[in-house]
Amino acid sequence: MKHAYEEAEKAYSKEEVPVGAVIVDCHSGEIIASSHNEMIGKKDPTAHAELLAIQRACLIRGKSRLEECDIYVTLEPCPMCAQAISFARLRRVYFGAYDSKGGGIDHGAKVFNAPSCHHTPEVIGGIEEQKCARLLVKFFEKKRGGSL
Amino acid sequence: MKHAYEEAEKAYSKEEVPVGAVIVDCHSGEIIASSHNEMIGKKDPTAHAELLAIQRACLIRGKSRLEECDIYVTLEPCPMCAQAISFARLRRVYFGAYDSKGGGIDHGAKVFNAPSCHHTPEVIGGIEEQKCARLLVKFFEKKRGGSL
Repeated sequence: MKHAYEEAEKAYSKEEVPVGAVIVDCHSGEIIASSHNEMIGKKDPTAHAELLAIQRACLIRGKSRLEECDIYVTLEPCPMCAQAISFARLRRVYFGAYDSKGGGIDHGAKVFNAPSCHHTPEVIGGIEEQKCARLLVKFFEKKRGGSL
Repeated sequence: MKHAYEEAEKAYSKEEVPVGAVIVDCHSGEIIASSHNEMIGKKDPTAHAELLAIQRACLIRGKSRLEECDIYVTLEPCPMCAQAISFARLRRVYFGAYDSKGGGIDHGAKVFNAPSCHHTPEVIGGIEEQKCARLLVKFFEKKRGGSL
């Protein structure tokens, strides 16, 4: 989660919503791909940290399934990213802050709870929750304050 | 939908699940981006026709919102693509076949029904439904028959 948080800080420094993600080989512990939100920079509404990490990890591994891998992300994934995590067959999702407004695992569409969700990863939320949430609060306070 | 179907046929010819999508300017009727499933070719589980069409249309338009655009897709979008359609602020979704197993609009997670879904496009399903469904049935029959 430390590395995912560092990615979130990179997003913050680029004036992107500070969310970071890391995909790790669950056996070796090796980081396969790291990413942060790039929706503004790429002018792409799908450029969420999780989606970018999955795309990069699949490219690096040369396959579309990441069965022996886990994802660490600083914020509860949205429905788009939750479904992408399911498609990628990731083993576990570790996330930081809960997202009652945009989350898609414990909130909103609760993608993994749908009976039609073919692969449901194990989910561990609330890791370094306060730290991850503080960075997001700081970002939105700064934005509202007109500094961005 | 004719163009989206032609894209689905391209996917079929590449041995990809035959789904095609087209994004159209709702005022001029101009096609901005066309795409088909490329999950196998790209080894990327997120390379669904809708996501690729959104990414291309945003790149072409140079912005992350496609407010004055509609998407035509031959199959009911999954939860990942439904959420991406919402993020892209597309005005309308026209889709062909309903997808009781993997759909995320009328089935499964029903992404647009979540109170936390910030933008809900208008949805018109069942356009050329039989034609779109037949291509998918043909694909899966061929696959089961071991011809692929």
